[in-house]
Amino acid sequence: MKKPVVRDEIDLPKGFKAAGLAAGIKKSGAPDMALIVSDGPAAAAGTFTTNQVKAAPVRVSMDHIRSGNVRAILANSGNANACTGKLGLRDAKEMAVEAALALGVNVAEVLVCSTGPIGLPMPMEKIRAGIPALVDALSSKGGAAASDAIRTTDKFPKHAMATLKIGGKAVTVSGMCKGAGMIHPGMATMLCFLLTDVRVSPANLRKCLREAVGNTFNAISVDGDMSTNDTVFLLANGASGATVKPGARGWKEFCAAVEAVAMNLALKIVRDGEGATKIVGVNVKNARSDAEADLAARAVANSLLVKTCWAGDYPNWGRIMDAIGYSRARVDEAKVDIWYDGVRAVKGGVSAGADVQALSRIQKQERFNLTIDLKLGKGRATVYTCDIGHEYIDVNVDYIKMPGRSPS
Amino acid sequence: MKKPVVRDEIDLPKGFKAAGLAAGIKKSGAPDMALIVSDGPAAAAGTFTTNQVKAAPVRVSMDHIRSGNVRAILANSGNANACTGKLGLRDAKEMAVEAALALGVNVAEVLVCSTGPIGLPMPMEKIRAGIPALVDALSSKGGAAASDAIRTTDKFPKHAMATLKIGGKAVTVSGMCKGAGMIHPGMATMLCFLLTDVRVSPANLRKCLREAVGNTFNAISVDGDMSTNDTVFLLANGASGATVKPGARGWKEFCAAVEAVAMNLALKIVRDGEGATKIVGVNVKNARSDAEADLAARAVANSLLVKTCWAGDYPNWGRIMDAIGYSRARVDEAKVDIWYDGVRAVKGGVSAGADVQALSRIQKQERFNLTIDLKLGKGRATVYTCDIGHEYIDVNVDYIKMPGRSPS
Repeated sequence: MKKPVVRDEIDLPKGFKAAGLAAGIKKSGAPDMALIVSDGPAAAAGTFTTNQVKAAPVRVSMDHIRSGNVRAILANSGNANACTGKLGLRDAKEMAVEAALALGVNVAEVLVCSTGPIGLPMPMEKIRAGIPALVDALSSKGGAAASDAIRTTDKFPKHAMATLKIGGKAVTVSGMCKGAGMIHPGMATMLCFLLTDVRVSPANLRKCLREAVGNTFNAISVDGDMSTNDTVFLLANGASGATVKPGARGWKEFCAAVEAVAMNLALKIVRDGEGATKIVGVNVKNARSDAEADLAARAVANSLLVKTCWAGDYPNWGRIMDAIGYSRARVDEAKVDIWYDGVRAVKGGVSAGADVQALSRIQKQERFNLTIDLKLGKGRATVYTCDIGHEYIDVNVDYIKMPGRSPS
Repeated sequence: MKKPVVRDEIDLPKGFKAAGLAAGIKKSGAPDMALIVSDGPAAAAGTFTTNQVKAAPVRVSMDHIRSGNVRAILANSGNANACTGKLGLRDAKEMAVEAALALGVNVAEVLVCSTGPIGLPMPMEKIRAGIPALVDALSSKGGAAASDAIRTTDKFPKHAMATLKIGGKAVTVSGMCKGAGMIHPGMATMLCFLLTDVRVSPANLRKCLREAVGNTFNAISVDGDMSTNDTVFLLANGASGATVKPGARGWKEFCAAVEAVAMNLALKIVRDGEGATKIVGVNVKNARSDAEADLAARAVANSLLVKTCWAGDYPNWGRIMDAIGYSRARVDEAKVDIWYDGVRAVKGGVSAGADVQALSRIQKQERFNLTIDLKLGKGRATVYTCDIGHEYIDVNVDYIKMPGRSPS
């Protein structure tokens, strides 16, 4: 199977339109509302935050997606509509109702997403005014505008696409996402909308999405934690004329394209980690199980001391040993090898005597891989993460400048 | 029972001597070796890191303390002797042997501790030269010198003492500790030596220490994680003539004094958290169980977004809701109340409409308490932690300046 080619741009798949605009939710005047619409019914799959504190739009969308068929996604940035109680739930439902009315579709066919600060009431008058304007602006060229409108602290919009042929038909998989601040999820951290024009059943679409998210967005969920608003949608409207299902021609290629687009977007989130200067792939191999490999990899990827170290020059592998040691993965100190790209820094739990300048040069790259070999079994896992430096603190200490009143 | 009065100074209990000096392990020339000796045999209890990667001196001391009787503690800063393999183990044993020879005691009566960077070989020639000099310098006034010599990134030495009367006899409980950098344990993070002159069996001493550590040092172990070198010792030599045991007069008072000294030291560690400007007590109450309360409190105390928020002005309680939501404690969003000291910020999971300036004033204090009421049961827990700002990054990005070679 050919590896899918992913491009850093976004053409919408056939039969989709989108729009983005500034509705005044953000004080900055930046775009803050997005709408994506499928001309006809689309199969839909979603994954949602596992946080017990769920934003109102998450609750509404979890309900609406159950049928497996949707027509539209309405999203806003600038307000997460989380920790907003019954009022927030009513507002989220109203967003779906207003969009459904404006589009002439059923309310349950509209998914809603919000991202931004937690605990503030939704400025519903702005949302209400924004919806018809979005409908007016809908265009098959509107992918980038929608992508731009879901940003919060994101330094750049994040989208990507792949095209493939299935049964002679041209198929497109496009995606947009927002997310930055990779550590503990901040503020409705991640939204991702994946769109495609294949025909596929909702059940099979869910299978495809589950797989893709597990290998991509969940592999960068640095704490294994999720914010109150995290949401990934995959919509498939069949407009290409190509049909896919497991076991049949094109299924693997289709799933690979979805995963490749998702991975492109996931790595963009890591790269845009608040203040991040590099992406680090943490590979753990030969753990007792894949689950233990994942525990060890996440312990390293989530260690603040490891991540601050990566922002500096010195390849302080002692902090990596410390992190795997307190992870809940079984570790035999005397067996551990640690590699920085192709250079072994630790052999049998002690320094391998590598040239520290060589290790430092690797650590200074914009992208490098750590490989931690536990030599206890066959388990493996990879987690992608970033370094942490001053900019992270800048962004997060004063993320919300003191307003005149409480977020009430 | 009267609350023990703890003073921020250190007189050694009767029958103890101590010394600290600069042996040249630290390039800065700062003191880096400490010795504490009891004139006669002392009952001893210890708690050690649960990290699977254990420094060599931890392994040696775990072995030596098994008998419950010791005479001396030899400690160094400037090198953790962790991830140093068989050579490190030999070096740690040699430290005990050299000290035993110089003091005329058994090797198994000497406990050893090291703290500092991980992965570097011990400069044994300096250690060997330092030991007789330490023995020469031993003094009943040497507590502060020893306390000073175990610092690494600590901005100030940390010691405290309490005195009490048991059966008419004056009893002293003194302690010294080192530790800073409260997030993921950095570099052999915490050492604590508690000394007292009561007579008590090793088994009862262990009971007393376990209790005290659980309520103090383990309540600040921000991740529930421990570094490769974390160690707490409690030595009791009986020189006061007072004897204590559970159920008898003075036992509760004695244990309270040990815990009070330990708490004083633990809070000093938090206060010296790298770059910390404040101590925050995170109280969770009415969780389904104490264990769940602890999970929720630690999720808040360990959240980088919560901690960076505390370094700023804005009381962003949404980040607290997010953290308890992803903790493994059961949370019903609609029941949660959150208080900043005496002001309720969240009621039933949404803003309580508190004056944001009032909340901000509380958050700006050097010490404040969060109370999170889950209203699901009777479980409670308290964790003490600190804020995180730029200084943390400064300390940790460049903690080890690039030397000319690998830590080998």
